[in-house]
Amino acid sequence: MQLGMIGLGRMGANMARRLRRGGHAVVGFDPTPPARAALEDETVATVDSLQALVGALQPPRALWMMVPAGAPVDDTIAALRPLLAPGDVLVDGGNSWYRDSQRRHTALAEAGIAYLDVGTSGGVWGLAEGYSLMVGGDAEPAARLAPVFATLAPAADRGWAHVGPSGAGHFAKMVHNGIEYGMMQAYAEGFAILERRSDLVPDIAGLAELWRHGSVVRSWLLDLTAEALRDNPGLEGIAAWVPDSGEGRWTVAEAIELDVPAPVITQALLERLRSRQDNAYADRLLAAMRAAFGGHGIKRT
Amino acid sequence: MQLGMIGLGRMGANMARRLRRGGHAVVGFDPTPPARAALEDETVATVDSLQALVGALQPPRALWMMVPAGAPVDDTIAALRPLLAPGDVLVDGGNSWYRDSQRRHTALAEAGIAYLDVGTSGGVWGLAEGYSLMVGGDAEPAARLAPVFATLAPAADRGWAHVGPSGAGHFAKMVHNGIEYGMMQAYAEGFAILERRSDLVPDIAGLAELWRHGSVVRSWLLDLTAEALRDNPGLEGIAAWVPDSGEGRWTVAEAIELDVPAPVITQALLERLRSRQDNAYADRLLAAMRAAFGGHGIKRT
Amino acid sequence: MQLGMIGLGRMGANMARRLRRGGHAVVGFDPTPPARAALEDETVATVDSLQALVGALQPPRALWMMVPAGAPVDDTIAALRPLLAPGDVLVDGGNSWYRDSQRRHTALAEAGIAYLDVGTSGGVWGLAEGYSLMVGGDAEPAARLAPVFATLAPAADRGWAHVGPSGAGHFAKMVHNGIEYGMMQAYAEGFAILERRSDLVPDIAGLAELWRHGSVVRSWLLDLTAEALRDNPGLEGIAAWVPDSGEGRWTVAEAIELDVPAPVITQALLERLRSRQDNAYADRLLAAMRAAFGGHGIKRT
Amino acid sequence: MQLGMIGLGRMGANMARRLRRGGHAVVGFDPTPPARAALEDETVATVDSLQALVGALQPPRALWMMVPAGAPVDDTIAALRPLLAPGDVLVDGGNSWYRDSQRRHTALAEAGIAYLDVGTSGGVWGLAEGYSLMVGGDAEPAARLAPVFATLAPAADRGWAHVGPSGAGHFAKMVHNGIEYGMMQAYAEGFAILERRSDLVPDIAGLAELWRHGSVVRSWLLDLTAEALRDNPGLEGIAAWVPDSGEGRWTVAEAIELDVPAPVITQALLERLRSRQDNAYADRLLAAMRAAFGGHGIKRT
Repeated sequence: MQLGMIGLGRMGANMARRLRRGGHAVVGFDPTPPARAALEDETVATVDSLQALVGALQPPRALWMMVPAGAPVDDTIAALRPLLAPGDVLVDGGNSWYRDSQRRHTALAEAGIAYLDVGTSGGVWGLAEGYSLMVGGDAEPAARLAPVFATLAPAADRGWAHVGPSGAGHFAKMVHNGIEYGMMQAYAEGFAILERRSDLVPDIAGLAELWRHGSVVRSWLLDLTAEALRDNPGLEGIAAWVPDSGEGRWTVAEAIELDVPAPVITQALLERLRSRQDNAYADRLLAAMRAAFGGHGIKRT
Repeated sequence: MQLGMIGLGRMGANMARRLRRGGHAVVGFDPTPPARAALEDETVATVDSLQALVGALQPPRALWMMVPAGAPVDDTIAALRPLLAPGDVLVDGGNSWYRDSQRRHTALAEAGIAYLDVGTSGGVWGLAEGYSLMVGGDAEPAARLAPVFATLAPAADRGWAHVGPSGAGHFAKMVHNGIEYGMMQAYAEGFAILERRSDLVPDIAGLAELWRHGSVVRSWLLDLTAEALRDNPGLEGIAAWVPDSGEGRWTVAEAIELDVPAPVITQALLERLRSRQDNAYADRLLAAMRAAFGGHGIKRT
Repeated sequence: MQLGMIGLGRMGANMARRLRRGGHAVVGFDPTPPARAALEDETVATVDSLQALVGALQPPRALWMMVPAGAPVDDTIAALRPLLAPGDVLVDGGNSWYRDSQRRHTALAEAGIAYLDVGTSGGVWGLAEGYSLMVGGDAEPAARLAPVFATLAPAADRGWAHVGPSGAGHFAKMVHNGIEYGMMQAYAEGFAILERRSDLVPDIAGLAELWRHGSVVRSWLLDLTAEALRDNPGLEGIAAWVPDSGEGRWTVAEAIELDVPAPVITQALLERLRSRQDNAYADRLLAAMRAAFGGHGIKRT
Repeated sequence: MQLGMIGLGRMGANMARRLRRGGHAVVGFDPTPPARAALEDETVATVDSLQALVGALQPPRALWMMVPAGAPVDDTIAALRPLLAPGDVLVDGGNSWYRDSQRRHTALAEAGIAYLDVGTSGGVWGLAEGYSLMVGGDAEPAARLAPVFATLAPAADRGWAHVGPSGAGHFAKMVHNGIEYGMMQAYAEGFAILERRSDLVPDIAGLAELWRHGSVVRSWLLDLTAEALRDNPGLEGIAAWVPDSGEGRWTVAEAIELDVPAPVITQALLERLRSRQDNAYADRLLAAMRAAFGGHGIKRT
């Protein structure tokens, strides 16, 4: 079917390619000329304005946003809304907060425009392997876009589903990312323990590769980890500095709001904050306290 | 090659079967008649004493223990030692503490008996899918048993390796289980958050199945979790009571001894302890303290 | 000086009493007749409406709210606003979220009404021992109310201060409560460990009393804990069920927003959530996963 | 009464002084001449060998060790044992592991020598304020040394007690230090949150001072913290590097062995390990994993 893709960055461009290869008619928009140019040899048509994009699509239109969460989504919706007509469907495939998606759904419903929140997992590997798609929103537009989901997913009959009403897709994706934080931290801690005993287990990369086959901890993240360790087992040149995007924080906040203790997901987030601290005030105060009550020496900077 | 399997429980019996199907000549020993009987239709010969087992093997012998960690391993070694001869190799494929394995290796080396500590992962699925094997010990006996490892592993060239000197195999397995604790807890927390919002995402089992395809959190544990949720999405009849075996504790203790913070693996262990608490004294004291300073009401039993 | 006290519950009534005993002219308001009656023998005048309260005070008026955080504060402000005049000062001495206080400060400033957010600590002991007061807001009204703060505090020259602009008082109180959560949990865990070894240290209450004198962990919370344990060392009849009010949650959320890892305060909050869980889904799922991969038995309900 | 003090470091010298001022006849021993010299103007007699020390005391003798935990205690006992006689009592006032104390108690009991494990809290302030003493061991020698405990404690009737049989004193002290870790971390986190909002609450030292009076979090540790912050509110020149001695680790290990979850004490310990990490492998691996699955940029060193 015909679809407009808004945002041709790492994720949006790959999704446009996968859809095109799957036989869909994709028109892409991105404000940046190089982003558009990168897609043209893929027979994905591109346009240089939202107005042109909407004009290129047959009503009822299907548009898919892959833009950063927050203001960019609201800005895009504000620009699109006067251009769209009742019956059109707009998809947010990014990592928006699920309550923002619910708010946008409600606002667009007043104009007769359908709004789907589609949690999208798979990263840079999605082009080749397909994306995991968690679709939230009304049943009718979700059903209408089934051919698109079926192409983006690893297979037509798996890796995508309509998981619930508006917000459900981004809620599911939020929790997915919380789990991802916890899994990543579990692996990172385990390999850090091993690295400290390289006298005993010298080949960490080899062990990661071994575990990929038959072990209880085998996973796609381990596949990638084994590859990363094979290329750079000492992790040379990489700073011990770990960003976090919003979804880990939202998961932690949501869990607390729901009275569900999630200590491991929470600790995984806190460790990322910790990785970005330098000369931590808390640790300096602990050192000062030890000196104050016990006369213990302080390490000076 | 010829191998004696000591301990024909869930793990040992399946390993004997997989070896037999792979063309090896396995003689099994278990003190329990039903455990022996269960293997006989598989053309695995069984004997009813360690003496008979040793007598049935050609020197230099290869013996593999699959017995519970701790005293049973020491007892088995004590019984075997006078029966074995220099050049024999004894394998501990169970979940022993790696320092116990190092101690045993040293003690048996005095008698010229080789000792391998083989961390074995794969659980009840190992018979069909193969086991992940982390081999610790001296190079010569490890090389000698390569045909056995190649058969037990998912494939001859992957899923097993000689990972280091004595203790390395069980050290690697210990860390593997620590990671496993963290991953399991991450999934459990995520699904618990989802379960609390079943109004929004009603089909948790369907979501687990969806994530198996294309998502960042796909893994073998997720495959099994999706299956468990499909059969019993409400987890009816299951007590919220989670045992822990030694390896999680050892990982936590080892990490602290090595000065490596492992907060997620540690929290995953503590949550298991917590699951087995009833009427926790700490929580009752918190309630009493709140009443004492703030006049807050106490919930009475 | 003259002051109107709004809300004559546990905290407000005691503060009115302490002010009255300190020579201030207090007029109290509470919608509940028994709450008013309880104060009358203390020579604290009471009225039965906000209108009467405002009428009883000389401009520029000073009013102090001790009402539950959230809607009750907004409702009280909405009712007061048309009654107040420029130059009046309104204090929120409750546990409001500091950003709500900042919002209210801004809104009232438009009407020329000063607004102070006063974090108040001390609980039911404040009447006798004085309250710790963290004053946020503009300098002029803060200075005007200095006599009130000096009386409520343990002494005129200590235990209270103007800590910063609007929001600062409630921000400081929020963090205070976060620390309180962490301290309480530290004690609770320690005594729970001791309780498990009552064969070795049989008299926990005696140990708590001992620690009050000369130990590094001596504190006011320990004073109260020792008293609670002396009265009920087995904590009989107390449910292991610990509520949490908003301030712990806000501290955790704020810390994350500020990129400051606060693992202990966070864990202390999560333990309270955990105390209120029964038949935890996460733990049931862990048990199901162990059965799925390892064939481990499940405890049935 | 007469007492021999072994080890005249920070703790031992101050305890000798406090005992001397309390009217006891103290003979001090330390292998280091300056340590001995420092005590002489205090009318504490000193000797330069254990043999001289034992010779200077009337049987049945009372000796008190204040030496570092571990080998120094065993070495001192080995040197003393042939010099002592049945009926003598030896005290370990240091931070030994309680199971070591139990082992030593048993060994010395064979020679008729009593052994007390006395957990001692109070740090450098003990000279002036008295020490909190948790006495473990047999009842008779504990009663015999009561005059010594009564002088060392803040007052004759409080701050010390015979808390249980051999090991109980050091067990109680171990848990005391675990609680101390948790409390310190709670304060450190709270002040770190405040420090990040110094725009809102500019005077952290003033707030710490304020909280000392009337607040729920007032404590002796807060008294010292307020003083440390007053002298150096920016904690300038202090490295964010926090040592840990054995007692925190033992508390964590013991709690796990007892199946008592102690998440806050545990996290407090892990944060100390974390403070001493540089270029953490775990964090570098997390960064590498993010790049691998999501194409996220890596910060380079």
